[in-house]
Amino acid sequence: MRLLLLSNAKCEGMGYLEHAREHVRDFLGGTVPRVLFVPFAAVTRSYDDFVGQTLPVFDALGVAVEGIHRCTDPVAAVNEAPALMIGGGNTWKLLRELRSQALLPAIRARVERGMPYIGWSAGSNVACPTIMTTNDMPICDPHGFDALGLVPFQINPHYLHGNPPGFKGETREERINEYLALHPDVVVAGLREGTAFRVEDATLRLLGDAECRVFRHGQPPRELTRGDDFGFLLAPR
Amino acid sequence: MRLLLLSNAKCEGMGYLEHAREHVRDFLGGTVPRVLFVPFAAVTRSYDDFVGQTLPVFDALGVAVEGIHRCTDPVAAVNEAPALMIGGGNTWKLLRELRSQALLPAIRARVERGMPYIGWSAGSNVACPTIMTTNDMPICDPHGFDALGLVPFQINPHYLHGNPPGFKGETREERINEYLALHPDVVVAGLREGTAFRVEDATLRLLGDAECRVFRHGQPPRELTRGDDFGFLLAPR
Repeated sequence: MRLLLLSNAKCEGMGYLEHAREHVRDFLGGTVPRVLFVPFAAVTRSYDDFVGQTLPVFDALGVAVEGIHRCTDPVAAVNEAPALMIGGGNTWKLLRELRSQALLPAIRARVERGMPYIGWSAGSNVACPTIMTTNDMPICDPHGFDALGLVPFQINPHYLHGNPPGFKGETREERINEYLALHPDVVVAGLREGTAFRVEDATLRLLGDAECRVFRHGQPPRELTRGDDFGFLLAPR
Repeated sequence: MRLLLLSNAKCEGMGYLEHAREHVRDFLGGTVPRVLFVPFAAVTRSYDDFVGQTLPVFDALGVAVEGIHRCTDPVAAVNEAPALMIGGGNTWKLLRELRSQALLPAIRARVERGMPYIGWSAGSNVACPTIMTTNDMPICDPHGFDALGLVPFQINPHYLHGNPPGFKGETREERINEYLALHPDVVVAGLREGTAFRVEDATLRLLGDAECRVFRHGQPPRELTRGDDFGFLLAPR
């Protein structure tokens, strides 16, 4: 299994996905002529516009981007794609479309047989067993919270520690602890902006400079850096 | 119908619900000896502890607080309660419990016949048609997003304008605009901390000093203050 799971696409002062360009280049390794792109997380922009946002980086890499919304048979498109990429936006709308178009089993089967998978934000969330650690507003019912389950742990993208001044809602950590209270056997990785996970079969590495905050029920959170061993996240529990 | 829908319970430098005490006193009007309290939004604290958090304010008002989790027949308890109160926490867990204990129709019927309803945060969210404008992490599947529907519009509690520095996730306004894109006929009220709605049949008033940001699909958001007319929120669309 080959996964590149990014926290986010936008970094201060950089173009869309620009901070991830070298990670993507290294991950695709010059062998992939095109990626099939799933833009279903877009809500207030068009799917074509969303494809366009990815082009500056992928043009520079010499990789073509094909929007799945333009394919007459999306499942067949997944079955024939050299690589798949799912962009961020609203996780609920993304999951609803993936389910209603019968893409979840198709994508899962191809990734399990080696098709490279790139996701960011909502696209990283749907790689998890469920979307229960999303930050997004639940603007539609996806008819089930289960997702692709490419990894056995949960990612919280855009992980942010603490609250802005004056804001008395729950912190992200409090929200994750609520999740853990109901799901004590699942590990949650708070993936800060600018960071990513790269999975190569049984190996998982953190990319980027920020730490990753790992939450387990009944244990103090741990801050791990890119030199640390993350293999435990992939181990059966 | 009589509703007091608060954005939040905690304000800087004040005790739990303390900022709302005079609103609650005025709303209950000295005629209610006890309130039935629904603490199901609590996840990482016990229901008894949650009841305890409300006691300083309600003791001062001379109103007893009875936790519904202590009642052998919760539906009967709703049917006999002089007033009902639903506290904040996790909206998903709250809605799951309300649904699984068959409390949604019971509460709706009593409120429609005049039982005073007090909610804050998640307890204000479930007074809306759905919980699709919650900020909470979806830690469990409530098996349907529909809620009490006591008002015909959606509340976004803890409304916060803009993003903290360095955070590149969607702003609250962007999230609400995504909701409106899929639900163009629904109005969303961004209820800032320290504010509340008070509904008396066909009248709705804003309480508190901060403005309320009102969102409609295809229109610029409006900032309304407590002197403004909010009746349009209750009007059939």
